[in-house]
Formats: sequence, structure tokens, C-alpha cells
Amino acid sequence: MIDNTISDTSRIKDARFLTKLIKADEAAALISHGSTVGFSGFVGAGSPLYVPLAIANKAQNMHEQGKEYQINVFSGASTDVDLDGALAKAEAVAFRTPFNTDPNMRAAINSGATRYVDVHLSSLAWQVEAGYFGNMDFAVIEISGITENGELIPTTSVGNNQSWLNYADKIILELNIHQPKELDGFHDVYHQPLPPHREPIPIKTPRDRVGSPYMKVDFNKVVGVVLSSTEDRLNKFTPLDEISIAIGDNVVKFLENEVEAGRLPKGKLLPLQSGIGNVANAVLAGLTKAGYKGLECYSEVIQDGMLELIKHGTVDFASASALSLSPSAVEEFRKNVDFYKEHIVLRPQEISNSPEAIRRLGVIAMNGMLEADIYGNVNSTNVMGTNMMNGIGGSGDFARNGYLSLFLTPSMAKGGAISAIVPFVSHLDHTEHDSMVIVTEYGFADLRGLSPKERAKKMIAIAHPDFRDMLQDYFDRACEQPKAGHTPHLLDEALSWHSRFKKTGTMKKD
Amino acid sequence: MIDNTISDTSRIKDARFLTKLIKADEAAALISHGSTVGFSGFVGAGSPLYVPLAIANKAQNMHEQGKEYQINVFSGASTDVDLDGALAKAEAVAFRTPFNTDPNMRAAINSGATRYVDVHLSSLAWQVEAGYFGNMDFAVIEISGITENGELIPTTSVGNNQSWLNYADKIILELNIHQPKELDGFHDVYHQPLPPHREPIPIKTPRDRVGSPYMKVDFNKVVGVVLSSTEDRLNKFTPLDEISIAIGDNVVKFLENEVEAGRLPKGKLLPLQSGIGNVANAVLAGLTKAGYKGLECYSEVIQDGMLELIKHGTVDFASASALSLSPSAVEEFRKNVDFYKEHIVLRPQEISNSPEAIRRLGVIAMNGMLEADIYGNVNSTNVMGTNMMNGIGGSGDFARNGYLSLFLTPSMAKGGAISAIVPFVSHLDHTEHDSMVIVTEYGFADLRGLSPKERAKKMIAIAHPDFRDMLQDYFDRACEQPKAGHTPHLLDEALSWHSRFKKTGTMKKD
Repeated sequence: MIDNTISDTSRIKDARFLTKLIKADEAAALISHGSTVGFSGFVGAGSPLYVPLAIANKAQNMHEQGKEYQINVFSGASTDVDLDGALAKAEAVAFRTPFNTDPNMRAAINSGATRYVDVHLSSLAWQVEAGYFGNMDFAVIEISGITENGELIPTTSVGNNQSWLNYADKIILELNIHQPKELDGFHDVYHQPLPPHREPIPIKTPRDRVGSPYMKVDFNKVVGVVLSSTEDRLNKFTPLDEISIAIGDNVVKFLENEVEAGRLPKGKLLPLQSGIGNVANAVLAGLTKAGYKGLECYSEVIQDGMLELIKHGTVDFASASALSLSPSAVEEFRKNVDFYKEHIVLRPQEISNSPEAIRRLGVIAMNGMLEADIYGNVNSTNVMGTNMMNGIGGSGDFARNGYLSLFLTPSMAKGGAISAIVPFVSHLDHTEHDSMVIVTEYGFADLRGLSPKERAKKMIAIAHPDFRDMLQDYFDRACEQPKAGHTPHLLDEALSWHSRFKKTGTMKKD
Repeated sequence: MIDNTISDTSRIKDARFLTKLIKADEAAALISHGSTVGFSGFVGAGSPLYVPLAIANKAQNMHEQGKEYQINVFSGASTDVDLDGALAKAEAVAFRTPFNTDPNMRAAINSGATRYVDVHLSSLAWQVEAGYFGNMDFAVIEISGITENGELIPTTSVGNNQSWLNYADKIILELNIHQPKELDGFHDVYHQPLPPHREPIPIKTPRDRVGSPYMKVDFNKVVGVVLSSTEDRLNKFTPLDEISIAIGDNVVKFLENEVEAGRLPKGKLLPLQSGIGNVANAVLAGLTKAGYKGLECYSEVIQDGMLELIKHGTVDFASASALSLSPSAVEEFRKNVDFYKEHIVLRPQEISNSPEAIRRLGVIAMNGMLEADIYGNVNSTNVMGTNMMNGIGGSGDFARNGYLSLFLTPSMAKGGAISAIVPFVSHLDHTEHDSMVIVTEYGFADLRGLSPKERAKKMIAIAHPDFRDMLQDYFDRACEQPKAGHTPHLLDEALSWHSRFKKTGTMKKD
């Protein structure tokens, strides 16, 4: 996988950096057991790949020799199979934050082999810089070039890169010559200092550029530049299924109701944030179908589908932290790079996910979830309350601060064994104070302005029909208790659906 | 209680308003069954009193005649016994939001007689203006004067007043001539429009004034000006007890560790937010004892103790939404009003609690709670998961966005029957992603950078000794299960402590 013969240094315009060229295994050799490393990478985009693979190899060799070797891994968000996957398989990760989608890393987290901390994506950078996670020994950052002034051109994500560059003691740059050099100019790197020195973030629309296209680096901290050539390894998305399309249509129906009622500006809506995957893609497809034009996005990730929407005019501008494209979409992107530069900006995740910016812009937040309870509390992270799926990601940043906050989910999982609407969530990431609208393929539950008991009625109506009677029965009996209170629950039964699933493989009763 | 003989109109400098003078019962007569009313008032400060009492009387009369009469009540935060209390006793409230501390209103909420929606204090104003709660028929706002230009001088709180004045169809002003006229100049009314028209809030330090000292009103919407003379009816605070002092000392110890470690600026810390009541007062007392000088507060409420701290120099400046003073503190305030004007500003709660401002300033957030679980999830609102106490208030605004986010509680309640640290919270308002430090009289649990299993160890260590073995036993058995996962729980036992309390009156086992 690692090609040690790459020698094209034409993207290094500051000659000082030529003196720092090393191979990936030499970089890995610098990183000793117990090191804390901040990697670039956000939803599989812009991760270094050679250095992590070399670290994984080193770990394997050392373990074979009976020696300890593990590092602490910080990233932007999820990386990919050659970073999280390779390091997890090599049992090389003692600690991981803030978000992961790799199945091997997930297994290590759930077995306890890797300690994991689940942090809002907007918050990790400043919390690290504030010293809450201790020292950072290395930053390992993928770049697509170095300018004459010694500034760094990011690749397909900005993530926490500038913060890692600022905070880490030593820096390893992975210059990936496969990344389009046309990426130059797509980024807007605005970095906030710690309080009490912060200023207002001057973003007033998703398209505002408020920083520099380049990242700053202290050359004296650079201990290596590794040349690489590799594409982002992104998961392919399956075609839209009926359920996703139905959810997307319900979202569009909800938004049209809002426009109709005068609660959203006609035509342009407000800036959209949508998560990744099938359901998110279905929402965007639904908006296209409904004839929307000129929409703006203030979101985390731009995927293949977004390029199509931009080309089609459905979306006029998209702000995000990562450009997560498949190889064929990269081709399209390269061919029409000047066009896309007018319509896309990539920001640090502290800015793409900034509570300040999200609330000011009035973002319409749409995120997936694992389950919600009858009162609208949402679990986004822990399956059956105990097993980590991916992490909270940016869903909290957007849901708490959005002008509208929607959570979308198919009503069932595991072929009908699991209901997405339950009496009591087994883990809680988004409280009743933050979830405004829950959407399944059966409709939307608009919870705004409703007391808990009113919410339950709406939630039960969008559950899968197989589970509605069970939910209604739980709710009715909870309400019938003496002193049932404001938020009625049967404490002895609240988690019984999850317990039953663990014992019998289904939430359904015999 | 209502004095209909008040005739001093000297504070009305715009003569147009003299034509609108009416009595409280005439105001109440305008407000028909089913009306939605936005009242001023924040933590008992600045509530109108005559008009609510007149509404309560009207409701009682109508109910005696067998007629329906209920209204929907919106406020800033908690009001007082003559607003929430009187209206609840008269069974006059169909709907209430966003926060309440009155025991009669609490009973109505928990019995289901009054529908209640629990909203972040920073969010209610814009959500109402966005139309999420339907139309607002009346704003009933206490003022201390009307300027020559027809602008309104607030009294002891700003709360949501400007939003209610903007959004309501009709306006009733209650001019309280007992409120110090020296309040003129203490306020900074900055109002945000709805997206997409929002601008950065230009606050860079707690002392920045960015708006107007006065509230704007459309004279054409004013249907009445009621003259009143009454003081705020505030709960007295009991003297500090040993447990509160111990909690306060633990907070100070934690903060000194942070300064020592270089994670907080020496001497001045960062702006403080603290809740109300005994524990919050104990923290401020602890900071005084530790010799701090020149501190800044960016908080919700200024209470008696804060005036002392300002006089003493411990606090140099305090920004809040309400000045909640006892009659004797009002005397002190009047005597030294010019001095206090240099050290205090009162803002709309959308600004005092603004996520944007809180994150920018780096506020140290300190809030009370009902219970936390072994992983650091916090319940601030629902006793035993079902019965509403007061509401989330501003705790979510500050905890999510604070530079440090502390939750403070005595380790036990009800004479030892209830542990504040439990296996699984029975309701969740602040997630593990937001709670950084939990403090009891037994110490502080610094959860930053820790995985759930590491957190449990810290949490058990600050529980009351009577409950530590039980917590450890739960945690150990949860971890010993096959596939225990990232956040181990025994689903069949997770809520058993609360269930036991409901059945036996104590969380302790026989």
C-alpha cells in the first residue's frame, strides 16, 4: 500500500520543507509508545494514510516482539479503513476521540481495549487547546501542497487541522500528490483563540469567507514531510430504498407546511444541515423533486449527491468541513473545479459546527438517530444503552442551535426486531429540550410547543404499526398510576424493551 | 393587595400614554378565556403583580359562575407568588412555559391541570417570535417609567420583555412606582431579529453595552397602563449550611487546581455563571475567602450576596438578566446606586444566556442538579423521572457552551433516602458530552477526557459513603456481563433505585 518511490516535490514551493523529506516508516519511528497524535481526517476525507499504516506496521512488529506499543488517536471525525481500521487491527490505539465509523475500531471501543471519549465535533479542538486532554505529541496532517510562504494547503477536509498544528509539539506532514491540486482556494481557515481573547465569528451567510485559504505552521516544529499518493477510501452509498424515500418526502412535506404557515421564508428556506447516508441523501433528493432552487447548506460534509444538486441548481452554495467524494465524483470535481469553487467552501469543524454560526444563520438541522422515546428524547450513540455505534458527531451542535431541529429514522431496525420509538431511551444524547421534529416513514411528529403527554401521542403515531399498541399500552398505564406526574413512566418497565431484545433477540412480546 | 388609588403619573414622560391609564381589573377584563399572555418576570424579579392578581380574581369569579376561564402563561423565568401562585390557585392557567418555582403551579403541572413545556431560557423568545407557540394575544410588562420618546424603562429584570412587546398583539404596561427610578440606565436591551437577518452579537466582555437602555414599544398596540406600587416578592435564602460550604470549598479547590495547571488565567479566572440558592452562594463565599478580587460574572441573576461581593471588590462586574434583591438589599442598592451602575448590567435573557456569548467569553458555568449517574449524565428537572421540579432554566445554555461546566449537589437528599449519584438517571437534561465536573461535599469528579468506565470510578468516589458500595456493586456487575460494551448497564436494574424509593421511601436496600 505504501509507495516509497514517490519523488514528485513540485508542490513544495518553500524549499525549507525539502530538507524534511522522510519516508512513512521513518515518521512512524519517531512516534513512540504512549504518544498522543492528532490526525487530520473528517468522514473519511483528508486523512493521512501512509503514516498511519506505517504506525500500524510498527505496532504489529513490536507486539510480535512482545513489546508494548499503543498511541492515543485524535482526529477531526471518522477517518477510514487505513487509519482507524489499520490501527485498530494492529491493537495500536489506547485512546480514541471524537468519532469513529470503522468496525474494527468500534469493536476495540466496545471491548474496552480502546478507551473512547465522545465529544461534540465543535468542541474537541478548543478543549484540546485548553489542555483538557493533556499534551499532544504529534500532529499528522495530510496536505495537498506547501506555498512559497510556508503555508499549508489542506486536502479534502479542514477538520481540526489548524488546532492540531498549533497545539502539537511536533508535526509530520503527509503531502498527498494524488489529491487534486485544484483544491487550492476551496478552504477558509479561521481559527479562534482561547477565551478571553475570542472575537465574534464574522460569518453572516454560509458563503462568507472570513479566514485564510491556507493553514499556518511553525516550521521549527516540522519533523518530517512524507510524500504519498492515495485516494480517500470512502464507503459507497447504496441506492435510495423505499423507506428512505418516504422519510425524505415526509421531511419535505414538513418543510412545505412551515413555508405555508409563514414560519420559513418562501423559496429559499434557511441554510440546511444534513447528516450523511441514505436518509440524508433522500431528503436532498426530495427537495430537488419538489422543485427547490438556490438553497444554501451550512453543514459538515459534502458528498457526491451534493455536487449533482449544485450542478442542477437545487443548491447554490454549500459550506462544510469535508468534501467526501467517490473516485468518479472526484473526476467530475476536477473537470469543473472553477465552477465548484464558486459554490463550495471548506471550514474548520469548530466553525462548520459553531453554535454561534448555526444559531445566527438559522440552520435547519437534520440528523439521524438510533432511537427516540415517546417524549422525544433521542439516543444517537449507544445501541441498547451500552454499545457505542459511531459517536455523537456534530448532531448536538446542530440540534441544539438549529432554527429547526429534525431527527430522522426508519421506524424499525433488524428486520422488525427493534422499534426506533421506545418507552424510554436506553441512552440519551439529545434531550426533549432540543428535538423539535421526529420523522419516520410513517410521518412527522412535530413536538414544538407540546407538553410531554401531548408529545407521546404524536410519537406513537409515527412508530411502526407493529409497536404502536405496545407503546400506547405503556403510556396509558404510566398515566394511570397515582402521582403519574409531568412525564409519566413505569420505572420497572421503562427499559424492558431493550432488556427483552438482549434476552430474546426482539423487542416484541411472545 | 391591589391599590386602586395610586395616581402618581410623574414617571410617564410621554403624554400619549396618560390616555391609556386603566385599573388592574379593567386590564383583566380585556383578557378573555384562552388568551396567550407574555408576562415580564425573571426569578421573581420584575413581574407585574396587579394585573395577574386581577386575572386570578376574574378567573375565580367566572369559575364560581360555572364559566370557563384559563389563559396560557409565558414569562422570562420563574415569577412569584402573586403571579404563578395566584393564577395557579385560581386554576387559571391552561399552559405554562418556560420555568416555574411556585409550589402551586408545580402541583398544577404535575397533576396535568396545566400543560407545561420546558424550554432553554435562551431559546423561548426567538421560538415564540418564529411562531412555534402560535399567536400571543397580550404582553403584560412591568416598567419603572416611560421616556419622553415613548420608550420603556424596565424594572428589575429584562427577560423576554422586548420580544413579548414585539410579538404580542396588544400590550398592557404595569408601571410600578415602588421600583427604584434609579434603575434607569442599568439595562442594555439588544434584540436579535430572526434569521436570515441576524448579526454577530458584539459582546466581547461581560461589561460591554451593545443595545439601548430602553425597550421599544408600538404605542398603537398599548391597550392599557396600570399604575401599581409593590415590591418584588422574593424567597429569602437560608444561611449557609455545612454541606453547602463544603461544596463551595470543593469548587474553589477545583478552580485553583485549574489555575495551577495553567488551564485558567491566574487571578481573574474567566467570567462566572452561578445558579441561585445556597450552594451557589457558598461558591461565591468560597471565592471571597480564597482572596479573589476583580472577578467578572456573566450570569442570569444578581442576588443580595452579589452586591456584597461587588462592594468588597471580589466581583468587579456582573452581567445578568435580573436583579433579584430582598427589601433590605434594595435599600443598599438605592443608597449606592451610582456605584452599582458602574458594576452591573441587565440584559435580555436571549443575550444573558446566549450560546454565542457564553462560548466566546469562556464562561465558567456552575449549576445545581437533582441527580447524576455514574457516567456523568445529569437530571435537573424531573424528580424520580416523572415529577417536574422547576424546569431546565438556563442550565443547558451555560453547561453546553461553558469553558468549564460544573454541576453541584449535596450527595444526598430527603435525610439520606435519596442518593444524588445513581446508576442511571431517571430523566436526562445534560448529557455526558456536556458535564465536565460534578461536585459534592465529598469532592469533585473531573470527568474531562475520561471514558465512561473511568468516569464511573470518579463519580462513585464523590457519592455519599452510604451509597458507594451499592454503586460499585452495580458498576462491577454491569462490567462483568458478556458484551458489557462501552457504557455498561444492567438494564433490569438501571432504574431500580428510583423504583425502590417510590415503593419504600428510600433508595437504600433493606
